[in-house]
Formats: sequence, structure tokens, C-alpha cells
Amino acid sequence: MRILIVNVNTTEAITEAIAEQARSVAAPGTEIVGLTPYFGAESVEGNFESYLAAIAVMDRVLSYDQPYDAVIQAGYGEHGREGLQELLDVPVVDITDAAASTAMYLGHAYSVVTSLDRTVPLIEDRLKLSGLYERCASVRASGLAVLELEADPQRAVAAIVEQAERAVRDDKAEVICLGCGGMAGLDEQIRQRTGVPVVDGVSAAVTIAESLVRLGLSTSKVRTYATPRPKKVIGWPPRFGR
Amino acid sequence: MRILIVNVNTTEAITEAIAEQARSVAAPGTEIVGLTPYFGAESVEGNFESYLAAIAVMDRVLSYDQPYDAVIQAGYGEHGREGLQELLDVPVVDITDAAASTAMYLGHAYSVVTSLDRTVPLIEDRLKLSGLYERCASVRASGLAVLELEADPQRAVAAIVEQAERAVRDDKAEVICLGCGGMAGLDEQIRQRTGVPVVDGVSAAVTIAESLVRLGLSTSKVRTYATPRPKKVIGWPPRFGR
Amino acid sequence: MRILIVNVNTTEAITEAIAEQARSVAAPGTEIVGLTPYFGAESVEGNFESYLAAIAVMDRVLSYDQPYDAVIQAGYGEHGREGLQELLDVPVVDITDAAASTAMYLGHAYSVVTSLDRTVPLIEDRLKLSGLYERCASVRASGLAVLELEADPQRAVAAIVEQAERAVRDDKAEVICLGCGGMAGLDEQIRQRTGVPVVDGVSAAVTIAESLVRLGLSTSKVRTYATPRPKKVIGWPPRFGR
Amino acid sequence: MRILIVNVNTTEAITEAIAEQARSVAAPGTEIVGLTPYFGAESVEGNFESYLAAIAVMDRVLSYDQPYDAVIQAGYGEHGREGLQELLDVPVVDITDAAASTAMYLGHAYSVVTSLDRTVPLIEDRLKLSGLYERCASVRASGLAVLELEADPQRAVAAIVEQAERAVRDDKAEVICLGCGGMAGLDEQIRQRTGVPVVDGVSAAVTIAESLVRLGLSTSKVRTYATPRPKKVIGWPPRFGR
Amino acid sequence: MRILIVNVNTTEAITEAIAEQARSVAAPGTEIVGLTPYFGAESVEGNFESYLAAIAVMDRVLSYDQPYDAVIQAGYGEHGREGLQELLDVPVVDITDAAASTAMYLGHAYSVVTSLDRTVPLIEDRLKLSGLYERCASVRASGLAVLELEADPQRAVAAIVEQAERAVRDDKAEVICLGCGGMAGLDEQIRQRTGVPVVDGVSAAVTIAESLVRLGLSTSKVRTYATPRPKKVIGWPPRFGR
Amino acid sequence: MRILIVNVNTTEAITEAIAEQARSVAAPGTEIVGLTPYFGAESVEGNFESYLAAIAVMDRVLSYDQPYDAVIQAGYGEHGREGLQELLDVPVVDITDAAASTAMYLGHAYSVVTSLDRTVPLIEDRLKLSGLYERCASVRASGLAVLELEADPQRAVAAIVEQAERAVRDDKAEVICLGCGGMAGLDEQIRQRTGVPVVDGVSAAVTIAESLVRLGLSTSKVRTYATPRPKKVIGWPPRFGR
Repeated sequence: MRILIVNVNTTEAITEAIAEQARSVAAPGTEIVGLTPYFGAESVEGNFESYLAAIAVMDRVLSYDQPYDAVIQAGYGEHGREGLQELLDVPVVDITDAAASTAMYLGHAYSVVTSLDRTVPLIEDRLKLSGLYERCASVRASGLAVLELEADPQRAVAAIVEQAERAVRDDKAEVICLGCGGMAGLDEQIRQRTGVPVVDGVSAAVTIAESLVRLGLSTSKVRTYATPRPKKVIGWPPRFGR
Repeated sequence: MRILIVNVNTTEAITEAIAEQARSVAAPGTEIVGLTPYFGAESVEGNFESYLAAIAVMDRVLSYDQPYDAVIQAGYGEHGREGLQELLDVPVVDITDAAASTAMYLGHAYSVVTSLDRTVPLIEDRLKLSGLYERCASVRASGLAVLELEADPQRAVAAIVEQAERAVRDDKAEVICLGCGGMAGLDEQIRQRTGVPVVDGVSAAVTIAESLVRLGLSTSKVRTYATPRPKKVIGWPPRFGR
Repeated sequence: MRILIVNVNTTEAITEAIAEQARSVAAPGTEIVGLTPYFGAESVEGNFESYLAAIAVMDRVLSYDQPYDAVIQAGYGEHGREGLQELLDVPVVDITDAAASTAMYLGHAYSVVTSLDRTVPLIEDRLKLSGLYERCASVRASGLAVLELEADPQRAVAAIVEQAERAVRDDKAEVICLGCGGMAGLDEQIRQRTGVPVVDGVSAAVTIAESLVRLGLSTSKVRTYATPRPKKVIGWPPRFGR
Repeated sequence: MRILIVNVNTTEAITEAIAEQARSVAAPGTEIVGLTPYFGAESVEGNFESYLAAIAVMDRVLSYDQPYDAVIQAGYGEHGREGLQELLDVPVVDITDAAASTAMYLGHAYSVVTSLDRTVPLIEDRLKLSGLYERCASVRASGLAVLELEADPQRAVAAIVEQAERAVRDDKAEVICLGCGGMAGLDEQIRQRTGVPVVDGVSAAVTIAESLVRLGLSTSKVRTYATPRPKKVIGWPPRFGR
Repeated sequence: MRILIVNVNTTEAITEAIAEQARSVAAPGTEIVGLTPYFGAESVEGNFESYLAAIAVMDRVLSYDQPYDAVIQAGYGEHGREGLQELLDVPVVDITDAAASTAMYLGHAYSVVTSLDRTVPLIEDRLKLSGLYERCASVRASGLAVLELEADPQRAVAAIVEQAERAVRDDKAEVICLGCGGMAGLDEQIRQRTGVPVVDGVSAAVTIAESLVRLGLSTSKVRTYATPRPKKVIGWPPRFGR
Repeated sequence: MRILIVNVNTTEAITEAIAEQARSVAAPGTEIVGLTPYFGAESVEGNFESYLAAIAVMDRVLSYDQPYDAVIQAGYGEHGREGLQELLDVPVVDITDAAASTAMYLGHAYSVVTSLDRTVPLIEDRLKLSGLYERCASVRASGLAVLELEADPQRAVAAIVEQAERAVRDDKAEVICLGCGGMAGLDEQIRQRTGVPVVDGVSAAVTIAESLVRLGLSTSKVRTYATPRPKKVIGWPPRFGR
């Protein structure tokens, strides 16, 4: 099967890291295709950038002209997943949800460690809407921006470990979710240093997407995610940046 | 003061109706400017169209080159308000929130009557995130699409009255919110026929926006709605549809 | 239009301060009438005093013999608003609700800073019942009694700023509500010292009451706030203190 | 021990019926003293009447000049319990809470059947504040006013049974609480006709009050229910109706 | 009347202490019978031990061959109460619920102080399912295992007082529940040292069980707690440990 | 990898059906071992039977003397999962959680259709504790007992379809979960007849267990699911039925 994994920012190096992480856990026979949006911000750390990413991700997926079996949206706490679910017939998995639903099998409560403090409310809101917030002990910020995490993995590990340890000690988290697409690949180091299971959303999303495909399940089209009604739409598909 | 009221769809007639409704309740000295996005769908009834509207509204507001004091986003249950709050220093009011917060002064519980059933979950989700859902008795669909409501006001009134009466009788609503920008101007007829207060979100939003300006209050910039960080953004401002 | 603003305690100086604050934000053409209850406590800081205030406020409003368009109950977290809503046909606005619903337009979460710790649960309970608690980050006490706040504004500012800063830093509040009628007029100083928007409930209530009147909206009479049924009531209107 | 049971309305026949019901379940050695407020409404069916009852009950209890060990407030969904808790050192039990906390030992969910529809939101709100609403399946109105229930017990039984049966069948209630002080004594008939346990709040409250006294437990005075601070209070104790 | 009080562990000394505490508060004419399960762990501090206790308690009660009027399950936060409710016609009271429902009459919020940190989530979950968690300020662990509490009461008092004081100061608890069957008898000392009411679940449960019996109330059999359907059950009654 | 899938009842035919369903979706290289408890009820439809199943499942798994990589508990809404998580180092997946977490990727809300009405509250409670209830639209009973479902699949399909259709129409479910281990294999028929995705918990659990193993994730041992402390346990392992 072929799974598209779409970055939410326009930084190719992050797309590659995400796709690499996805490939490292994919089942034999699963082809992972990493996609970078044609437009949007180089990193997504707030609502404006996230809304722009939402449509850039939809645009990028619709522009892909080969068959595929599932789509993963690889941004943490970003807008847009519901739009993809309307537009596509194949399953759509957001890494925010994937990390959380996986963490819930591993402990009584989980925490998310993300990049900047300003993204914390976005992640909390996305988890609330997904119905996966009830057992969230906390969402904590490492204080490093997405591109800083990408640029300096050892500094990233140190900052994440500090917040993860506080989450375990003070918030009673029993599992840590890595709350940023750019953290893919740091899970093992952080697990060794905190002693609790660490869930990488990209990895979790790959297995969930594969599972849905294998089970023949896809998005329900009866109500919320019904295909958009035919109507006049100006400026779509967009010509942004192309 | 000058208040921009931005339609979420590209149908000029709806923009005009909304702006007219806004002018009818504005205080002396308030200038209402109706704006239509440069791109997007002719009506917004789902997540894809709503996400596209989110950025089209941001684009349209940023393209406006005169001074203004507040912005009203005139779509019911749509995405995007948080992005505008980041980008602007003036207050931003969404009509979904405006109708709900006004209704809460009038009765113990309120219901929303909207267009199509598929938009109900969007409205519920927006109210949940805004923290205004607790006293929402129900969100009900009239079954008419936005453009049908616009085209045939008497049919619209009949369909809305039917759901409003059920909301009062079965869901114990004490106030009805008109859950569609295109319903502006129907409030008085519906009030007469249901016997309960009817809140039009556009009208409510005008008074709230005026009040915030008069009180010198605007969006807090310390965390969630901080100005976006300077970074490279491809394709913005967009060239969509222009 | 004429708006009655009713203090909940019997301290005339507080009534005057509240009315003055209300007048400072009222629209041209709005007459503000400050009323002091005929009976009750000199300051309200608990349930007994608050229940007594509830009926003293109703009594005072019913004793007012001129026409009026709306009533503001100027106590933070006090009982009684629902009774006024039953007795009157004009809109009723409680400053607790007014501050909260206004704050929700300004940030993702708000905190209230009030007088004594013992009043915190009253405020929390009133916000819960009003359906405005969901985005309340915290209710914090300055530790100063109502009459101390009144007597020594600089000490009041210092104590409020301290708690407001903790609310922003520790509780992630993005907006501060001044949780005591007697704090009217301190908002600007506190805003300067905390850097976040500060909402004074009296000011917010004036604009909301004006807006409801302008929109022709008043309390729904179908259920919770229906006019009391005619029946024998001993001791009403009261002769307390007169 | 002596327990005061205070009616919330001024109808002596209801006080007597309540006291009689209380005596029928009291332990040997428990003296039940029924008290009727000196002022207030002949029946309490809304917020205005309930707020007036709140202070009338406090006044009546404080006027009682003999020793006593506990106080029961015998109104369903009424205001005032927290004020009594501040003013007294002995335990205070509200029959609304007593019925609910007792019902929770008997089934997975309970419903309340009360008098008029307008009192339903008051009961729901009181249960929410008491933290006893989570397992409430519904609050249903028989449609009979308090004095009608009192005047015609057979009609009362029929109306209550009808709603109780709907609560069991449609709302999945497993226990019924009689939601009106005036229903005391109907429990056995209703139990026979519905087949589920029926809890009378007056009876439940007597056993809870006795238990608290026997265990040496009374209201915590550290925060919410601390004794009112000494201050000038005009018009208290009241001269209403005397 | 005769009340069975069943320990959840197999330590006879704890059964005796519990039964002694129960007798010290029982009404004249109430006979308390302490029962120790035939199998299970010497102390219960986790889910495996608690599930085993659940069936051991059911087995022990069903093995008791004399008449009885009510059953108390004397473990804090343990599984099994719902099973007893299905199997028996007499009322069943769990001490976790008894302490919480009693505490709610005494203050606006209560905390539980228990043995080990690992039992905290069990207690929280039990209170959530019982619908008694809403006003729980916190569940705190003393850090002492059940058998340590039993062995060294003065050390137990010191550890519990420390957590109780934090609960009052930091979590705003107004009442403390002793969250371990083995803490029976320590309530008075802890009350003296914290200044807030202290509820012992065993004592509370005795008065609640007595009250239910006196009121003629028992478990509803219409749905959740209906008697098990007749069917083939292998290995029941068990031969474990006998 | 080897996954143990443990039935909760003692009916071998159900174990075989469950294991067969599991094998039909397992990845190449996954060995499914079906286990039947040594003791317990022939079908589990209530708390007593479910608590007995809880320990019977733990006993059966601990008795298995070959290596394995994950365990699936194949009962819907049953007790015991947390005990297995304490006792084992490999991941444990309950089919109730697996169906719900999978359904949440497919639609905005899901409903569960189960066997008898008496099991509905158990399922609701398990979903609440697992933090997966927020988007549950309803749990509905087909009215057929577990063994009836097993004995007459066509009658089962008809009864399940009826409730599934009501869930979609009345409760706004967009996905249906088959709420009984014995329903394994009916998913495709029900999907065809309702038009919405149908999730079989056994199938979902297999893919989740495989995923957790592949990702190297297992239960966190820091708090709730820490290994039981060494202590004297009478009657364990049990000799029930052997």
C-alpha cells in the first residue's frame, strides 16, 4: 500500500526526516511518500500559519496524481484534518491524534511535550475536539521553536527531557508524546532518560493508517465528513507559489 | 469608528445583506464596511470550504488599506477567527460567539438553528472551543442550504420556525440564535412566531465590537494570539483568484 | 435610555464609585442611576450577606418609581440575578457575567482577581451556573476585604497586580477580570503593570446592557425566568430598615 | 437530639406534613421540630420566591431560641443552604442533596420528579453545585403546582407515577427522587407502581442529619462556610411580617 | 439489625480494627459482623489485588449463612461493589463512596488522603464512576503502605497530617477523607491537627447502611444491578484457599 | 509475533470464533493464540460475571507457558484490563477501547451496539474510564443475549442493524462499533445494511496490538500499572475448576 505523509510546513528537510521516520516503522510492502506543501510557512507555530497549512496540505494532497491508500497529516495540533476527511475517500490520520490514542494504551495519563508555549493551546484544543483530551495530564512546551529543534537535536533532547520529567513528576503523566513533527526520531533517547514510554506521532500514525487500510475502513461519509457539495469555488485549486 | 464585517463566502448579495443588517443596528458614528473575500466558495457548508474561507477572510482583511477599529467574521461555525486575532491588533468578533454570549443574558439555555445538518458539528465544535457551549440546548438544522435561505426568505422562515419550536418544546431552549450569516434580518419574524427572544449574530457582533472599541479593549498578545513570528511564508499574500 | 446600576452592599461611597465608573463609559444619551439597597451588609463577602443582598437588590429595584430600560447588578459572584430576571421585563446584567463574557473575546483563558479567599467559591459557582467557567483559568484572591480595597486604592492595586501576574504566569490567563464592584476604576493601572487586557465588570456590563436595549432584546419568559405566579407572599415588599 | 426541619414556604399544613414525615423515620430519641418561616411565599416555585425563602429560613432558624443539633432545609432545589452553613455551627442538610446522595447508593442513575416545569432548572442547578448531578438521569415535572400536590394527593400520585415511569423507560433512571417537600409520604405508593426504589428527601435528610450528629461532624469553617465577618448589617434580623 | 462489614484483604487484624471502629459508631441494636475474605492479598494496593479482592469479598459474603440487613465493603477505591449489588437484595455501601458523600455535607470540596501513590488513580476512578468526584479537590498519598499504616499509627498520623495540610492549603480542600480502611480510628487525631472535619469511611458507611435499612431502601433491580441471569458458571463458588 | 487473545467467558465456540476473526486480519507472521478461561460464566452479561472473568482472564494468561508479545482481552465492557497491565510486561489491548479508538478516526461520533440492556452501563463506564467516551453518541442494546447472538447470526444481524440505524438517525452516530466479542464477523453485513463504517473490536485490537509490538511500546510501569508489590496472596494462582 502507499501512504502519503504530508508535512505542514515548507521545510523540505523536515519532510525528509518525517518520511524517513515513517519508513523506519512501516510494514513490508508499505510505500511512504513524503510531501511538502507548495506554499505556507517554513514552520508552523500558531493559528495563522496553521490555517494556511490546512489548505496547503489539502492542495498538496489533491495535486498528487498517483493512487494512494491513506494520508497522514504530520503536524502537531494543526488545523485541517477535517477538510482532508471531506475531500478524500481514503483514511486520514493526524499525528496529534495518533500519538494520543496510542499513549492511552500505555498508561493512565499522558503528557505532550511540544515546541513553543504559544502552540500549547492549539494542541489542547485539537485534542479536545478529537475526544482524546480526557486522559491528557498536560501539554508542556520545551521553549524551542520548530526550526531550533530541527537544527540542534541534542539541545532539543535536553529541553524535552526536562519537561517530560516534570510531566511525570508533577502532572502524573505515565507516557510522553512528542508533540512536534520535527521531533521524529528522538523517542528512544527520551525514553531512556525518563523511564516512561515515549510515543512519536509519526510512527504511531503509520501503524494506524496501515491498520485502517488493512481492515478496509475509511471515513464515514454520512454527515460531518460528507464530500463537499458541488458549487462554485473561486481560486481553487490555488496558484499560490507555483 | 469603522468596523469591517467580512463575509465568509464569495456571494456579494450575502455580503450586502449582512452589511445592511449591521448598519441597521450600528450606533451613530459607526461606519460599517462589508467585505467579500477574493476567493473561496459561494457558500460555506463544511470543513473544506470553511478552511478555505478562513484564509480568504484573513487575506481580505489584510488587503483592506484604510484604518479600522474592529473586525467581525460573519460566518456561523467557521474556522479562522483565531488567525485573525493573531494578525490584527484590533478586536475580532465571530458572529457564532456573539450570538451565543448574547443569548446567555436572555435565558437559561439557547439553541441555534442553522442551514444544513452537515454544519451542525462545526457549530458545536466552535462553541465548545469558545467556551460557550455549556448552556447550548441544541444546534438544529433547517435543512435548507445557505443559498436557498438567501433565495427564498419565506421558505427559510417556515423551516427555521419549525426547528425553533422544537428546540423550545423538546430541548428546553429559552432563546434562539439564527445560525447562518444569511439569516440576518429574519429575527423579528421568527420571534413573533416562537414567542422567545431571537438573536441575530450579525447584530450582536456589531454591538460587541463597538463596545470593545469603546472600552479600549483588544486581543491579548501574551500567548495564544501573539503576533506570528517573522518567518519565510511562501505564497502569502496569495494570488488566488486575482 | 436609563440604566439602573444597583450596588449589592449598603455603602453609599461604593455605589457612587460604581455609578461614576458606569457613567464614564456610557454612550451619549444613556443615563446611569446608581442605587443602594435599603438594607443588607456594608460589604458582601459570603453567602449569608449575598443572599440578603439578593433580596435587597430586588427590593431596591422594585422601589424605584421611574421608568428604566435595563438593570445592572453590581456585585461580583453574588446571588440574586435570576430573581431580578423573573421580576422584570427589562434586561438584567450581572457584572460577574459581563466581565467573563467580555474577557472571552480577548484571550484564550481569563482569570478573576477578587477580594477575600472566602468569596472565590461563590464566584466560581456563579460562573459555572452562567456557563462561562470553561475558559476561566483561575479565580484568585487579593486577600483584601471589600472595604479595604475601597479605602486604600494603592494597596489594592499592588495586591491585585501580584495575583494577576501569578494568574498570567502560572495559570496561563491571557486576560484579567477585576472581581469586585469596588475595584471599578483600577483597570488601567493594572493593565499597565501586567501587560494583558483588564476587564472591569461594571464597564463591560454598561455596554452589554446598552446593547441589549438597542437590539430590543430582553429576558425570555417561557420557562426559567417566567414572571412569578400570583400568590400570597408575606412580608413583601419588606419593611426592613425603612 | 433535636433536629429543626424548616419549611421554605409559609403554608403551615406543609410544615406539619413535613415534620410528620420526619418523625415517622426519626430514630428513638430524636426530636423533630418543624418550623415555618415568618415571611415569604405560600409556595416556592421560582427564583424570586426561593431567594426570599433563603433569608426567611435563615431568619426563622436564628429566631429559634432553644438548643438544637442539626437543621434540615426542606425545600427542593431552593437557594439558601450555604448561608445557613455560614451562620450555624451545627450540620445543615438540604433535602435536594439528601435525596440525591441517598439515591446514588441504590442505582446507577436517578431521576427527580418535581412540581412545575419552571422549577426544573433550579433543581438541576442546585444538584450541579452540590456535585451530585453526574448520575442524574433527568429532572421531570409533574405539571402540578406545590399547593395542588398538597391538596389532591391522588392526582399527585398519578402525575408523579406517569413521569417516574417515563424516567425509568426513556431516561434509564433506576431510582426516583420525590422532588418537592410537599410530596413527603407518597413514596410507598409510587414505589409500588413503578417497581423502583423511591427516595423521599425529607426522610433521607433526617437520617443524614442524625448520622452527622452521631459522628460528631459539622460544617468546615476554613473557607466557603466560615462564619460571616463582623460588620454592620442594616435590617437584620428582619422585621418582615412580624 | 445486622450489618456485615467485609475487609478487602486477608489480614485479620485489619478486619478487627475495622469492625471495632464500626461498632463504636453503630446505633444501639445494630450488630456488626466483621468478615475476612478466604483468599486474596494481605493488603490491597493495586488493580490485580483489587480485582482478586472483588471476588473474594463476594465469595465471603455469599458464604455467610446467617441473615443480615446490609453489607459494607471496607476497602478504599477497590473494585467489586457493583457485583455485590447484583448478587444481594440488601443494600451495599462502599466506604469510598460513604466518605465522599458524607464529606460533601461538610464543605465545598474534600480531599482524600490514602496510602501509596499507585492507589490514587484507582480511588479517582472509583469516585468518578460513583458520580462523587466533582467536588473532590485532590487524592493524595501518604506514601505509607497499608501494612505500615497498620503497624505504626503515629507515623501514619504524621504522614497523613502532612498531606492533609497540603490539601487544605494548596488544593483548597475543606474536609479530609481518610482513604484507607486501615486508617479507621485516626480521624480524631487528624482533625485536631488540621482543624477541618475528618471523615472516616467506615464510620460513615455504618450510618448510611443503617439509614438505608431503616428507610426500607435497597438496590434497584431494574437494570444495572439486576440479579445475574441463571447460567452455567464454572468454579463458583470457588475453592480457593479452602 | 505471538498474540494471545483471551475470551472472557468459558464458551469454547466463542473463543474459536474470536480467534478465527483475529487470524483473518492478522499480519503475515502474527500467530494468534485463542485462550478460554478455566473458570467463570458461559457468557458475561453483568458485573458479577465480569469481575469473575477479570481474574479468570489473568489466571489464564499467567498459566500460558510459552512466550508471547501482546495480549488482547476480548470482552466488551468488562473489568480486568488494568490488572493484566500490572501483571504483564507486554502490551494489553481491550477490544472495547480498540473499537472506540479506531472509530474515532472514521467519524465525528460513534455508537456501540451490544447485547443486553443491562450491559450498557458497564460499557459506558469502561469507555469513560478509558477516556474514550467523549465522542460516543450512544451505547444501544440489541436485546439479544450473548449466546443468542452466537446461536443465530441472522437474527443477530437484524437486531443489530435496527439499533445501528437508530444510532445513525437519532443519535447522530457516524460509525458503529460492534459491542460484543461474539459479534466478530458480522461487520461486513452490517456495514452494507447501514452505509456507515462498522468496527469490530477484535479486528481493531489485533492491529493495535501488532502496532504496539512493532513500535516497541508497552505499558508504563511508573505508577498505575506498576508490577504488584511482593506480598502474601492466599489462593493465587487459583485452583478453581481445575
